[in-house]
Amino acid sequence: MSLDAAAAGRLGTVRVVGTGLLGASVALGLRAGGARVLLSDTSPTALALARDVGAGEVDTGEVEPSLVVVACPPDVTAGVVAAELAAHPGATVTDVASVKAGVLAALERSGADLTRYAGGHPVAGRERSGAVAARADLFLGRPWVVCPTESTKPDRLDAVRGLAHALGGTPVMMAAAEHDAAVALVSHLPQVASSLVAARLAAAPEPAVALAGQGLRDLTRIAGSDPTLWAQILAANAGPVLDVLRAVRADLDGLIAALDALDGGDGADGEPPGAVQAPGARAVLAHLVADGNAGRERIPGKHGTPPTAYAVVTALLPDRPGQLGRLFHDIAEAGINVEEFSLEHSPGQPVGMAEVSVLPGARAGLEAALIARGWHVVA
Amino acid sequence: MSLDAAAAGRLGTVRVVGTGLLGASVALGLRAGGARVLLSDTSPTALALARDVGAGEVDTGEVEPSLVVVACPPDVTAGVVAAELAAHPGATVTDVASVKAGVLAALERSGADLTRYAGGHPVAGRERSGAVAARADLFLGRPWVVCPTESTKPDRLDAVRGLAHALGGTPVMMAAAEHDAAVALVSHLPQVASSLVAARLAAAPEPAVALAGQGLRDLTRIAGSDPTLWAQILAANAGPVLDVLRAVRADLDGLIAALDALDGGDGADGEPPGAVQAPGARAVLAHLVADGNAGRERIPGKHGTPPTAYAVVTALLPDRPGQLGRLFHDIAEAGINVEEFSLEHSPGQPVGMAEVSVLPGARAGLEAALIARGWHVVA
Repeated sequence: MSLDAAAAGRLGTVRVVGTGLLGASVALGLRAGGARVLLSDTSPTALALARDVGAGEVDTGEVEPSLVVVACPPDVTAGVVAAELAAHPGATVTDVASVKAGVLAALERSGADLTRYAGGHPVAGRERSGAVAARADLFLGRPWVVCPTESTKPDRLDAVRGLAHALGGTPVMMAAAEHDAAVALVSHLPQVASSLVAARLAAAPEPAVALAGQGLRDLTRIAGSDPTLWAQILAANAGPVLDVLRAVRADLDGLIAALDALDGGDGADGEPPGAVQAPGARAVLAHLVADGNAGRERIPGKHGTPPTAYAVVTALLPDRPGQLGRLFHDIAEAGINVEEFSLEHSPGQPVGMAEVSVLPGARAGLEAALIARGWHVVA
Repeated sequence: MSLDAAAAGRLGTVRVVGTGLLGASVALGLRAGGARVLLSDTSPTALALARDVGAGEVDTGEVEPSLVVVACPPDVTAGVVAAELAAHPGATVTDVASVKAGVLAALERSGADLTRYAGGHPVAGRERSGAVAARADLFLGRPWVVCPTESTKPDRLDAVRGLAHALGGTPVMMAAAEHDAAVALVSHLPQVASSLVAARLAAAPEPAVALAGQGLRDLTRIAGSDPTLWAQILAANAGPVLDVLRAVRADLDGLIAALDALDGGDGADGEPPGAVQAPGARAVLAHLVADGNAGRERIPGKHGTPPTAYAVVTALLPDRPGQLGRLFHDIAEAGINVEEFSLEHSPGQPVGMAEVSVLPGARAGLEAALIARGWHVVA
């Protein structure tokens, strides 16, 4: 999958309103496909920056767009979409807000011409923001949810789907409510969970934090997100996020009750106190982890395929320049494709563990090839 | 830091009771340092497996150990430690259970000779289990918490610290209660959070799960953990885990109340409903994310050093054999050391994003070197 210049060409002139990460990335991708892009932003500074990174020309109002992409903060999206529908009566209008039902409801109340509108949400992003972080390939191979209204005309819907295609995304048709419930689950809940865990570390004793390992680092990676943006996103999707968080709180309450039962007893022979009195409590704990096992197995892997049980070959890697290069050179010489790769370090030591995931059939060959080339392969 | 053969030599004959991942890794590491290791396990199959992977010889009772390492499941650790103290009256005894206060309390009640005991917890592990997953270098550079009792004699404490040194770990002295509170926070809470989030996916609609991205994948990596083992660990640390989970529930309750306030209003003009009526609610959301920012920044990075702001250079990587090798070859030729590396894929597309973290001063040189060699470096 790649940027689709033919699809970009069919879009005509595209006006992009809002030139942050998403808007500028849309603009860059369309320009890479040869489309003419007109830029607009309420901030003159942001607008100039987007122009300077090559995202397009500043819209002077002389050329009428055939497609308008609204890439504003979620809390002003509906108002801007309605204004664009009114200002450009021939144009198709879409947006890229990550929450859809609230925008749609506000538009329906506004009396705007929704025959020319379909909402969108490209499910892509970065931990950085602004036009400087934009990239033409941000949407490559990612889902691009398209939410038509009840009155969206087929040719307008095709134009919005064409936008996704032009940027290398995969259009996925969903109702707004279905979309919002989905992102509450797969995007907003993880953000909340990561922030909740990381927030507990803010005032923790230093010796405790020093015991942190890779599990905590992975879990809190997205806890570095922008508070203002996330307050908007969560507020805009309050209902579906509430549904998910209440379900999580019910599970958490069950867990707390089970631990409370275990914590209440006499603690003979190293048993956690209360274990004898609360025979079902351990089952609650085990069931939660087992349910997590089941849920995790459903998450799609690389390339959108079902998760594959890759074989992992682990090699010790001295922390010196050139070692990773030597490793990958040797893997390539063995003719083996790397599916996933991670480099795991231990604090205080100059040796890394390189975990090379390959298709199961390639495992034995890779191990033999690495050992033959002098690598320390961990069994 | 590395395995310390001199420290291993000073330990004398070591008896390892329990030959799962931790016990067998201890045994392998000591053997690599030249120590004599006697193995014991209640499961003849596990014992034979550990012997076969080279972890040591089966203990026949003919040789008296100078050090006993108990590496049994947490719920039997105290009983086994007491039995070993009684059976080997000259030996120092330690254990590797990941929860310490319950073991210590049970031992104090047992009347065992605690002058010869100090508890331990090597903060290391893998997602796989058993002797087949064991590795001599599992503890290299990781913290190894040592919890002496009030009556532990100095030479016995030295022996336990020597065990950590022999295996390349960093001994960290902590009181049992302090340790248990720390692991509740940095290890047990992340496991619970990951399982809670992943459990919500178990019954989710397929189109929702299909929108999952890297954030969810990172967050749920440890959700694949063993339910039985984790039920034991959580039960054994019920009190400290309860303290942490209750604090998280209080934060979650605050979040739910804020979202509920936002969800209750009229939703004019695309504003999330209720936003006007609940002006403080967005602040609650933003504060949670901001607290998470602060907590995340405290987590130590590679090599146990404070987190460094590495510069990240991102290159597009065609998904063909040899591309990673070519990339690292080119990086090595430029004389630049890679601090961290991750390979990010997008579903459905044959292009990966290789994110190469380097010291900030090396960034410009790396970008120039890669561009000169024909790589597509994402600005």
